[in-house]
Amino acid sequence: MNTGTILLIEDNPSDIGLTERAFKKSHITNDLVIAQDGQEGLDFLFCQGAYASREDTTPPMLVLLDLKLPKVDGLEVLRQIRNDPRTHRVPVVILTSSREEQDVAAGYDLGVNSYIRKPVDFQQFAEVIKQLGLYWLVINESPHRP
Amino acid sequence: MNTGTILLIEDNPSDIGLTERAFKKSHITNDLVIAQDGQEGLDFLFCQGAYASREDTTPPMLVLLDLKLPKVDGLEVLRQIRNDPRTHRVPVVILTSSREEQDVAAGYDLGVNSYIRKPVDFQQFAEVIKQLGLYWLVINESPHRP
Repeated sequence: MNTGTILLIEDNPSDIGLTERAFKKSHITNDLVIAQDGQEGLDFLFCQGAYASREDTTPPMLVLLDLKLPKVDGLEVLRQIRNDPRTHRVPVVILTSSREEQDVAAGYDLGVNSYIRKPVDFQQFAEVIKQLGLYWLVINESPHRP
Repeated sequence: MNTGTILLIEDNPSDIGLTERAFKKSHITNDLVIAQDGQEGLDFLFCQGAYASREDTTPPMLVLLDLKLPKVDGLEVLRQIRNDPRTHRVPVVILTSSREEQDVAAGYDLGVNSYIRKPVDFQQFAEVIKQLGLYWLVINESPHRP
């Protein structure tokens, strides 16, 4: 299993808690960094702002990205990830409650790797996190080798 | 489960057989179209050549793409998929025996959704196909709604 960091960019405390519980339940022990708005996510990714003195500048091995975010919205975060040579290959999965066709289309147009609609039910949500973790941490070949 | 077509672009008859068996074993019943070289894959995707009279012009819901292919290689197929408005959002998974860093990097640079190295052992290969099917057919939100 790939041991890199997972970056969760999510503002809803309840969804953050659910994701943490679902990771624990699936025995996914990777470091989980939480950014509560789009700007904080970008700061972590680009080692700036509050993360200017981040020692390990390796990009996260996976970014889980909500769409409706304070300060900088999810699609803009995705655009910046794809346009910067330091991060342009990082696997990004949109994890959102939106199933609006225009959000799905915009995500793929901006080069998201995968788009997942959050199930409302916790059991289903935990199952999705488990499958997602298995897929991206075990099955997928990461662009950033440890 | 999404019922769209899966396009497998693969020239090795033994790998085609393994994939078919692994799909069957995982109860994945989606139509599996097999293209045995890169040109045939492009002909299916763009409804041209032998597929000029293809009635259903919906793009496949998933493309599994080998890299070393006769006529047109896998990375060129990926480039054409991403550069054409009819297909640019289609999820593409590279499924290859190559684990060379430059192939992984080139795949992500050209916008592949995921990169998987084929396990040599059949049980492991079947497990990978099962997880891959579950992820892309059930968990992921397709850019092309039926």
